[in-house]
Amino acid sequence: MKRLQDKVLQEGLVLSDRVLKVDSFLNHQMDPVLMKEIGEEFVKRYDGERITKVLTIESSGIAPGLMTALVLNVPLIFARKQKSLTLRDDIFVEKVYSFTKQETNEVTVSKKFLSPDDRVLIIDDFLANGEAASGLARIVEQAGAAVVGFGIVIEKSFQPGRDHLLAAGYRVESLVRVASLEAGAVTFVDEAQEVAAE
Amino acid sequence: MKRLQDKVLQEGLVLSDRVLKVDSFLNHQMDPVLMKEIGEEFVKRYDGERITKVLTIESSGIAPGLMTALVLNVPLIFARKQKSLTLRDDIFVEKVYSFTKQETNEVTVSKKFLSPDDRVLIIDDFLANGEAASGLARIVEQAGAAVVGFGIVIEKSFQPGRDHLLAAGYRVESLVRVASLEAGAVTFVDEAQEVAAE
Repeated sequence: MKRLQDKVLQEGLVLSDRVLKVDSFLNHQMDPVLMKEIGEEFVKRYDGERITKVLTIESSGIAPGLMTALVLNVPLIFARKQKSLTLRDDIFVEKVYSFTKQETNEVTVSKKFLSPDDRVLIIDDFLANGEAASGLARIVEQAGAAVVGFGIVIEKSFQPGRDHLLAAGYRVESLVRVASLEAGAVTFVDEAQEVAAE
Repeated sequence: MKRLQDKVLQEGLVLSDRVLKVDSFLNHQMDPVLMKEIGEEFVKRYDGERITKVLTIESSGIAPGLMTALVLNVPLIFARKQKSLTLRDDIFVEKVYSFTKQETNEVTVSKKFLSPDDRVLIIDDFLANGEAASGLARIVEQAGAAVVGFGIVIEKSFQPGRDHLLAAGYRVESLVRVASLEAGAVTFVDEAQEVAAE
């Protein structure tokens, strides 16, 4: 998605070989019009998939998730993240490890909001190691529902998340694919080259 | 806002005299179309106020905040909540006590996203004791910017938040005002009666 690539180049801050800060338009301050275009793009890519629910995780997934759900006119569910939890039988729980924060969180969704009839699109702001994404997919599958695929705003393609999800048989649509953050510069995966090489 | 009152009556769960659970349409699962109507209503109420930014707090404020920002076509900022923080000079910080969770959090906004020219509308899902709302207002004022007012989705009018904000000179617009949760039932503040009594 060209406009989003431009935003990353103009406003993204490369803090290290692995950390891209995009708090001016995605993680802290947001451009709601760009967010709506992000939602429209996900819906276009998953056209015909009869999605019944959008699932994301607090906090930065909520905005792109909500705009996608608005365009589809289906409910958005955002999973909650907690440090630890007393066992309850009314929620789906999965453990998710964060490499960034070096901590394990319990990710939860209330059982009443997912059912075996659901076809679920999972949205998140970033895909790096794929821990959160996999946890959300396991929650959908605990409910007996179908994972239609993933919609990712920014994928760090040099980290293993995408490959893990593809290997598990999931479809992954990322609007921006970052090939490298080395030497303080953002370079994108060249989609044209990739297609040619296939 | 009639449609929102109906949702509260149909789907809200009264867990105690003080706790109203609305996780089917506001806090966990969301209806994006209702959320858009919420944004439109806030914009209508603050018509002519030349708002330049919408400010909210993670996580449940993000959806109504984003829709309000979309209708206004201005940026949304969501404040971050953290347990404790190393001192940094690039962020505004305020301490906010949560009566529900019985803990104090540091609420932060990056200094680069608020300036003295800004006219800020503060949006949140709930208003009870007003601790989070006041903390957000203090952050706006730290930046030298103006607080245009508050847009609250559900106000618990039997708790002191609204009166505290009014006493401090702020404008408060709440879409649903809950007078009482006693005996397991939701009753609303009768706006007509209030106006008549003034």
